Amino acid sequence: MPKTILVRQSPFAGNNETALANRAALDAAGVLAINVMASPGAGKTTLILATAGELHGKLRCGVVEGDIAGDIDARAAEEAGLPAVQINTGGACHLRADMLTQAMAELPLGEIDLLFIENVGNLVCPAGVLLGEHLRVVISSTAEGHDKPLKYPRVFRDAAAVVVSKWDVAPYVDFDISVYEGYLRRLNAGVPLFRLSARTGQGMAEWGRWLEEQARMHGG
Amino acid sequence: MPKTILVRQSPFAGNNETALANRAALDAAGVLAINVMASPGAGKTTLILATAGELHGKLRCGVVEGDIAGDIDARAAEEAGLPAVQINTGGACHLRADMLTQAMAELPLGEIDLLFIENVGNLVCPAGVLLGEHLRVVISSTAEGHDKPLKYPRVFRDAAAVVVSKWDVAPYVDFDISVYEGYLRRLNAGVPLFRLSARTGQGMAEWGRWLEEQARMHGG
Repeated sequence: MPKTILVRQSPFAGNNETALANRAALDAAGVLAINVMASPGAGKTTLILATAGELHGKLRCGVVEGDIAGDIDARAAEEAGLPAVQINTGGACHLRADMLTQAMAELPLGEIDLLFIENVGNLVCPAGVLLGEHLRVVISSTAEGHDKPLKYPRVFRDAAAVVVSKWDVAPYVDFDISVYEGYLRRLNAGVPLFRLSARTGQGMAEWGRWLEEQARMHGG
Repeated sequence: MPKTILVRQSPFAGNNETALANRAALDAAGVLAINVMASPGAGKTTLILATAGELHGKLRCGVVEGDIAGDIDARAAEEAGLPAVQINTGGACHLRADMLTQAMAELPLGEIDLLFIENVGNLVCPAGVLLGEHLRVVISSTAEGHDKPLKYPRVFRDAAAVVVSKWDVAPYVDFDISVYEGYLRRLNAGVPLFRLSARTGQGMAEWGRWLEEQARMHGG
C-alpha cells in the first residue's frame, strides 16, 4: 500500500519559503519535479502512468498524488511499479509546499529522476501556489471543449507545456484544436502543445522526448 | 450583448446573510434557483441551454453564468433567447452570494420561473458557499471517469440531483456507471441520478419532468 499523508495543519504563511526549500532538496537529489495541473477527470493519472512506461529505461519516475480524498491514484501508480505517495488534502482545493515536503520525506528521491506531482483536480486554485516544482504542465482533455484557455487563463499562462489529452475522443466531442490553440497562444505564445492519447499511444513518443530534454537541461 | 458583471470587491464576511436575502428575493419573485456545479468542461452551459429548450412552453428559464474570464457562455444563452448575465469573478474560484445579488438586479425576475446559476467550473470550492439557491445540482461527464464522487465528496453530498452528462461519449471512455453510483450512494443515498446526452437528447425528457416537479413543489 502506498503511504497516504493526511494533511492536518494549514501553515499557508511561508509557503514560498517552503517551496524554495523543496526546490533545493530536489536539486540536491537530482530530481526534476513537474507540477501537473488539470480539471477533475482530464486524465492526469492515466497520462502520468503511460508516461512512466514510455520513459522506462531512460528516466526513473516517481509520483506524488494529490487528492481531497481517496488513494486510488497512488495505488494505481504503485501497482505500475512506481514509488508513490498519496496526499489527502482533507478539503483543500490545491496542494501546498508543506504537503510536498511531507511527501518527499516518504519517497526514495535518490532513485527518482522525474517526479510528477499530480495536483488536486482544479484549473483555478493550484495556479497561484508554488510547491518547489521546476516545471508546470497543464492537461486538458478534448472532452472538456476548446474554450478552457479562455476561461481559466492563469493556469495556462504559467505552463511550461500544455497537453491536450484524450485525443482519441476528439471525433466524438465538440473540440476544435485551432480555436483552443488560438486562445492559448494569446496567453503563452511559445508554449509546447502536445496532442496525446494515453489509450492509443498517439503523441507519447514526442512527449517523452520533450521530458527527456527537460531532464537533460536541468542536469538530470 | 449580455450584461457582464466584473466583480471587484470581496465581502466574503456576511455571505450567508446575503444568501438569505437573495433567497427571499427569489421567493418573492416566484423564481426557483438552481446552483449548477461541475468540473470545467462537464457541459454545464450546453446542458442548461438544452434544458431550457426541453422546458420551452412549460417553464421560463434564465441564466447566470459564472466564469473567471470570458462571456461566451452568456452570449450563447442570449443567442438561445434566454435572459442571461455573465459574472466574471476575476480569479475567484467560485461564485459568492453578493455576485448573485448583482446578477439578479440585471435580470427580469418576473419573467423567469427557473434560474440556472452556472458556477465557476470547479468541483471543490463552490461546494461550501451558499448563494441563495433552492437546489444544488452536480454534473459530471462520462469523460471524467467514474471516480469523481470518491475524490470530490463534499459537492456530491449536498446535491439535490446528480447528472452524468455526455452519455453518448460513454462507449469511448473508461466509465462504469455502477462504480460511479456506488461511490455516490455512500455520500447521498437517495439522490436522483440522471444519465443525459444534450447532444442526442437521451434522458432530457425525464430530467425536464424532474425540474417541473421541483418548480411545482416550490410553488412555481
